[in-house]
Amino acid sequence: MTRDGLYTHAELHRLLSPRSVAIVGVSPNAAAFGSRVMANLEAAQFAGTVFPVNARYERIGERVCYPSIEALPESPDCVLIAVPREAVPPIVAECAARRAGGVVVLSSGFAETGKAGRREQQDHMLELARAARMPLVGPNCIGMINYNIGLLATFQLVPQAGPPSEPGIGILSQSGALALALVQDVAHGPVFSHVLTSGNASDVDVADHIAYLAAESSCKAIACVFEGLRQPERLLAAAQCAHAAGKPLVVYKTGVSERGTAAALVHTGSRAGSRVEYQALFKRAGIVAVDNFEALLETTTFLAKAGRPKAAGVAVVATSGGAGIMAADKAEQYGVSLPQPRPAVRAVLEGVIPEFGSTQNPCDVTAQVLSSPEGIYASVDAFMGDDSYGAMVVPHVFAYDPSTERFKVYSEAAARHGKIACVAWVSEHLEERGALVVERDPHLALFRSMERCFAALAAWHELEAWRRSRGL
Amino acid sequence: MTRDGLYTHAELHRLLSPRSVAIVGVSPNAAAFGSRVMANLEAAQFAGTVFPVNARYERIGERVCYPSIEALPESPDCVLIAVPREAVPPIVAECAARRAGGVVVLSSGFAETGKAGRREQQDHMLELARAARMPLVGPNCIGMINYNIGLLATFQLVPQAGPPSEPGIGILSQSGALALALVQDVAHGPVFSHVLTSGNASDVDVADHIAYLAAESSCKAIACVFEGLRQPERLLAAAQCAHAAGKPLVVYKTGVSERGTAAALVHTGSRAGSRVEYQALFKRAGIVAVDNFEALLETTTFLAKAGRPKAAGVAVVATSGGAGIMAADKAEQYGVSLPQPRPAVRAVLEGVIPEFGSTQNPCDVTAQVLSSPEGIYASVDAFMGDDSYGAMVVPHVFAYDPSTERFKVYSEAAARHGKIACVAWVSEHLEERGALVVERDPHLALFRSMERCFAALAAWHELEAWRRSRGL
Repeated sequence: MTRDGLYTHAELHRLLSPRSVAIVGVSPNAAAFGSRVMANLEAAQFAGTVFPVNARYERIGERVCYPSIEALPESPDCVLIAVPREAVPPIVAECAARRAGGVVVLSSGFAETGKAGRREQQDHMLELARAARMPLVGPNCIGMINYNIGLLATFQLVPQAGPPSEPGIGILSQSGALALALVQDVAHGPVFSHVLTSGNASDVDVADHIAYLAAESSCKAIACVFEGLRQPERLLAAAQCAHAAGKPLVVYKTGVSERGTAAALVHTGSRAGSRVEYQALFKRAGIVAVDNFEALLETTTFLAKAGRPKAAGVAVVATSGGAGIMAADKAEQYGVSLPQPRPAVRAVLEGVIPEFGSTQNPCDVTAQVLSSPEGIYASVDAFMGDDSYGAMVVPHVFAYDPSTERFKVYSEAAARHGKIACVAWVSEHLEERGALVVERDPHLALFRSMERCFAALAAWHELEAWRRSRGL
Repeated sequence: MTRDGLYTHAELHRLLSPRSVAIVGVSPNAAAFGSRVMANLEAAQFAGTVFPVNARYERIGERVCYPSIEALPESPDCVLIAVPREAVPPIVAECAARRAGGVVVLSSGFAETGKAGRREQQDHMLELARAARMPLVGPNCIGMINYNIGLLATFQLVPQAGPPSEPGIGILSQSGALALALVQDVAHGPVFSHVLTSGNASDVDVADHIAYLAAESSCKAIACVFEGLRQPERLLAAAQCAHAAGKPLVVYKTGVSERGTAAALVHTGSRAGSRVEYQALFKRAGIVAVDNFEALLETTTFLAKAGRPKAAGVAVVATSGGAGIMAADKAEQYGVSLPQPRPAVRAVLEGVIPEFGSTQNPCDVTAQVLSSPEGIYASVDAFMGDDSYGAMVVPHVFAYDPSTERFKVYSEAAARHGKIACVAWVSEHLEERGALVVERDPHLALFRSMERCFAALAAWHELEAWRRSRGL
């Protein structure tokens, strides 16, 4: 049941950007999965038509309820199936007969149970879909979100957000819960275009989803967490689509351990595959791989904001010598170059930094400049204006001071020179005290860890080298 | 100017737990460093006497101002010096003559400037103190906090907190800014007993501070960030004091890179030393070393709450299969054992977990149990009651649900069996949505990273092995 080629954008478009959605399994019980999907679509003011389907009711609330897919007034673009497992395959057959745009199977109990009979049921369902050339998402997934059209097609509680006013980040996750965890980042300011989950990925998998988002203009970068692919090499073609569209693709691959691999088999029926093979694949495909969940959106957001590096050097401008040392440690660990300031830059630094600070790189403008901030402004502008540096890291330790004036200065300097400023949040105040201001600024990238900041800078330079080697 | 032995608790007690504090450098200018120290002491309702010292004023606000240390009505326990560098050594001499309990030099411009003459000035000042057997903290430090007596002896803006109602964590930092960054964690619930900074550490260094806190009953665990010690082996004796008192000692050593080492020399005049040597030293001394700033307080808090492990096994109880796989990956990476459930435990799990979940370890109780939480309660209690497991990890992905009911159940199960439950926060909601409830619970440890959670569990087991090997 493997499939070599990726779905084309056209083949998935009805399903992932539907004008009509049928929900099988809606009932007057508001707690039923189908009812929860419908409530989400209504709350998000889904721009298309919604058809509740349930043979036992003529109306659900104020809506006409249809007895079957066959009985619908039109062929639905997307059918969400939330009924007990046994009832799913006949509905898939109905959808195929009705030439639906595709189905999303939310129901569980298939290959992930590890039982041979259940895998057969999944395969049977898949055959029905394949025979009709009808894409199938799931089973055992939480559905999907397309914020562009208010499509909150999931039974889970997720953040509401209007259509994005600018291109956003697309989230792809095999695990529903991890997708939910990621989309909660809406509270920090990033704009999301899509959240697509694949569950058991019997048909549509993350590779298809990547290729789809590569062609979606509302998506500017792709963040992906997954356990395994039946055909890992499909990622190569998917990544090519992303690269061709100039979109960074960042993945967090789980199931890299023996026990994790076993757990993945139970979770989504995935064969997680060898860690080393995947690493080699990511490298070959120009995919940025992160090792920790918390690095996924930070890194994707950074890459989306940073564009392409103008130089390999990074300047560290600290108000704390201690934080500057931390930065130097992490720069060396990740092989990020911190060139020493050239005479013109040094002259500026020497004019503003007290003698107990440091005019090197990392530069310590000292806490004294906080009372006369011109010093830090001058230093930042001098570094950003020098073409040795493609990015700046400013550790932020003193979040007890709620002023956000400094961030505006970093942002303006970054914008002026077309570079990125990374604010490394070295503070136990994680969300308040200006963090949001930084996250919402297009020229500032926030990292809540010095290590992740330098890991991302290194990945950025590596990605650039990969792109150049491919003539991109 | 080296010193082999550590200061005894008695030798430092007047200085670090003073009944009287003199501040040299107070002026009617509220922005002066000395004035800011005085304002902090007043705001914190320091339990002792405060003597402003400045020969140019007879009164400062409502207080009598003294022309000199000599003129004070009594020998001060602690003298805080916040005057320009040149004026510092004569004041130190005065303090020595007056038999002060010790001095804290806040002024900068000494060895950290890298200038030979300035190092000589620092050494000269030190000689004066040493000759009088008077401990000296600094120079180039931000001062110190002893929350037990409202001693906010620093010019920086720091969180106010009353005397701790229970033993707290002692923070030691060579860098002032990093100390400030750490103490901001007060907002998350931990109780701090002391924040002691050492700056250039010309005399009193982190080793002395560790030994002091080891003997302070208000301190139950020690978190320490530093750049380097002139005599690293002094840490061995200091760690021995901490171990004898049963207090975990966690360090984050910066300046581990070539560039970081150079920056440390400029920052506090420290020779950061070889990374490998320090690692060996930490291992030998039973010191828990972390590689990232954000791991320091998480790990210290965890160790303070966890006590000693009753078993090496760890149970992972996830409501998300994806998070369970992440946990398995990190467990393997850090060599943490996840024993499979024995028949009695498995029987409980099988009774409550749906078939699309997993009754293995990591166990996936599935999101379905969120609507009927008895399942997760039964699973948690079964694991915690089995003596294969000394700790439990519960990934928390779905912080969008603000209910904190589950945390109470984890806490009760942990308390009932005398074990620790780690909540691994796998969510982009970092501070809200129950995080505080977890952090303030004595039986729950919060980690904002699966990796740091398992790194800390591994360190806990390693520490236990070290203790046993030493008959502790």
